[in-house]
Amino acid sequence: MTDARVTDAARAAALDAADPLAAHRDRFVGAETPLVYFDGNSLGRPLRATADRLAGFVGGEWGGRLIRGWDEGWMDLPLTVGDRIGAALVGAAPGQALVGDSTTVLLYKLARAAVDHQQRVDPTRTEIVVGDDDFPTDRYLAESIAAERGMRLRWLAMDQAGGVDADQLRAAVGPETALVLLSHVAYRSAYLTDGAALTAVAHDAGAMVLWDLSHSVGSVPVDLDGWGADLAVGCSYKYLNGGPGAPAFGYVAARHHDTLTQPVTGWIGHADPFAMGPGYTPATGVRRFLSGTPPVLGMLAMQDMLDLLEEVGIAAVRTKSLALTAYAVELADAWLAPLGATVASPRDPELRGGHVTVHHPRMREVTAALWARDVIPDYRDPGGLRLGLSPLSTSFAEVHAGLEAVRAELAARA
Amino acid sequence: MTDARVTDAARAAALDAADPLAAHRDRFVGAETPLVYFDGNSLGRPLRATADRLAGFVGGEWGGRLIRGWDEGWMDLPLTVGDRIGAALVGAAPGQALVGDSTTVLLYKLARAAVDHQQRVDPTRTEIVVGDDDFPTDRYLAESIAAERGMRLRWLAMDQAGGVDADQLRAAVGPETALVLLSHVAYRSAYLTDGAALTAVAHDAGAMVLWDLSHSVGSVPVDLDGWGADLAVGCSYKYLNGGPGAPAFGYVAARHHDTLTQPVTGWIGHADPFAMGPGYTPATGVRRFLSGTPPVLGMLAMQDMLDLLEEVGIAAVRTKSLALTAYAVELADAWLAPLGATVASPRDPELRGGHVTVHHPRMREVTAALWARDVIPDYRDPGGLRLGLSPLSTSFAEVHAGLEAVRAELAARA
Repeated sequence: MTDARVTDAARAAALDAADPLAAHRDRFVGAETPLVYFDGNSLGRPLRATADRLAGFVGGEWGGRLIRGWDEGWMDLPLTVGDRIGAALVGAAPGQALVGDSTTVLLYKLARAAVDHQQRVDPTRTEIVVGDDDFPTDRYLAESIAAERGMRLRWLAMDQAGGVDADQLRAAVGPETALVLLSHVAYRSAYLTDGAALTAVAHDAGAMVLWDLSHSVGSVPVDLDGWGADLAVGCSYKYLNGGPGAPAFGYVAARHHDTLTQPVTGWIGHADPFAMGPGYTPATGVRRFLSGTPPVLGMLAMQDMLDLLEEVGIAAVRTKSLALTAYAVELADAWLAPLGATVASPRDPELRGGHVTVHHPRMREVTAALWARDVIPDYRDPGGLRLGLSPLSTSFAEVHAGLEAVRAELAARA
Repeated sequence: MTDARVTDAARAAALDAADPLAAHRDRFVGAETPLVYFDGNSLGRPLRATADRLAGFVGGEWGGRLIRGWDEGWMDLPLTVGDRIGAALVGAAPGQALVGDSTTVLLYKLARAAVDHQQRVDPTRTEIVVGDDDFPTDRYLAESIAAERGMRLRWLAMDQAGGVDADQLRAAVGPETALVLLSHVAYRSAYLTDGAALTAVAHDAGAMVLWDLSHSVGSVPVDLDGWGADLAVGCSYKYLNGGPGAPAFGYVAARHHDTLTQPVTGWIGHADPFAMGPGYTPATGVRRFLSGTPPVLGMLAMQDMLDLLEEVGIAAVRTKSLALTAYAVELADAWLAPLGATVASPRDPELRGGHVTVHHPRMREVTAALWARDVIPDYRDPGGLRLGLSPLSTSFAEVHAGLEAVRAELAARA
């Protein structure tokens, strides 16, 4: 028998009633439907305000101001939105963050900026260190950049509760390490690394660190300046609710602005874009890491979520996030463990990001069955049911209803 | 005295009355205002349908289907929209075009794919050929790719009416040429190259060609398969009305799909994106040239313009475009030449793309004055007033009103 004090629906209702952020959920499209959405860590729900913002943009700024919009704010939008993300979410003082490109492209550009610089300064730094179970794009890019620059890869085993800890990194870096590419929150397990500690370990070895914040930004506090971080990239369509395929954001610490350059040299990264003269001279500041025309349309929706995140504050978001994931772990222990499932995410809240992964050999078919009943988690091989709990759009009642559905589908296959 | 048969407003009205595409102008936001918009070749006007499409997407596909949208069409959208552009506008059989990244990033990826391949096959092909007055991004990328790959640049003088002709190219390419990067329509002068002839010249020398279609796609017919083209990239926020910073489209001829690879190896370009296993294996077909998560939001608006372009047909668009530019040239000759201005675009319609550039030393201040009276052309140093005439959203009356305003502002400075 499960403990009714844990699993009773009344407990979810009580948690929602006591949640100071509960009312914000109604600002999201679909909050009124019975759908259980556990995939905000893959694609965040839109805010209701976003439909009006987009339609208003078409009739107003775009349709009305037309090309004049570039002089009236669009040209600076990659930096102004970057600064908002920097200040509210990732601990970056102004002038170090930007928005543009896909997460993949921005990772490529900043990783290339780092290794090209390291190789100029010290050609014996020939190694890129990356987690062996990190998100595929991070691994693929490390692999192809190493190949194209004549460098080597060193794989870090992500076996510390699904992540990498400081001792592991210390054992892996050395005088040959040019760059360490690390996820702040692991996409499978939600393992939360110690950003300050790992940055220090890399720096002690003379390596630079490129942080992938895709699974932390907007749900877990990040303190890039405080960590002494070099470079970071994050995704805007997960906890920043920017819409499918919205552009990524990047961070380059100010101390690197004069020495790092990136390879995708478009007109927007030039010192004087409208001179259109001969020869590429990179802009001063973080603007030199931009390439093409700013994706203005793609930066609209995330501004609605930034409004809300600035209003609420990332500390309160993290508090709610921890409460949601703790509750999901409790329900998984009570309902799913007896059916053979195991919680694969760290139980220590200080080591856990914003999602909870539960393993069972039959989770692939369970996921399909859940989708058919409007419970939408994610699935990642092998056997991982990933429950993404967006702090501002997920209720405790939703967690309860969703885990109850997982239990039913697992029980039906027992 | 000017010839009233050319400059009379009644003539513009008659041309509009006889224009079979005139009615489509009302489908664009702002058509009802007195604003004269000569910058659709930089940022096309939105279609009225686009506000509803975007708002509907937020409440429907994104907000309602959420992550399920990826299985229900979003994942293939880069290729399905690419195929529509391919079929309707650039003469590409299915399976060779894609949408994603900025124009800059896509140019980088395809140029790298080409030169990396050429260098693998024949390391003595060490030269990239590019126009010396081509759009800055094209020149900057050629410059930085040459530097990073240990190659050389060869500049083509764009002095043939502002472009490059076949004889010039023939004199420049040889056994050392790896890649030729060419604009189909020159961004300054609107010089229209002969795509088939120049492709053949490059191929005769064993070089590959990367066409920049940014200033032709949607206004000038392009026949990539017919030209035997290798690679192409084009912009979607000019004549495809995709909105500020909308993603670019690219073309890779099918015969190159098995041999070319690009350096920005993200999960979406992998043979099996959701396997998330070790090692990067590029997808088959044109999908291998994708990198990050498809920019779904950014691909919405261009679909409205594709609907219209498919309905009208690119041949009719070109006919209207030629009539608009011919009329602008006539008015410039009648009104502006007596004030010292010269038409810098080719007078031969077969050599002219969709815009007309008029030179005068004081055009910078004239442009500012025009903007102040809601006549919006573009300005490009030195002294170039660029009149972009979008065939589906520009009327002859607009051309008349705009050129009359240019005349007034030039006359005030005579």
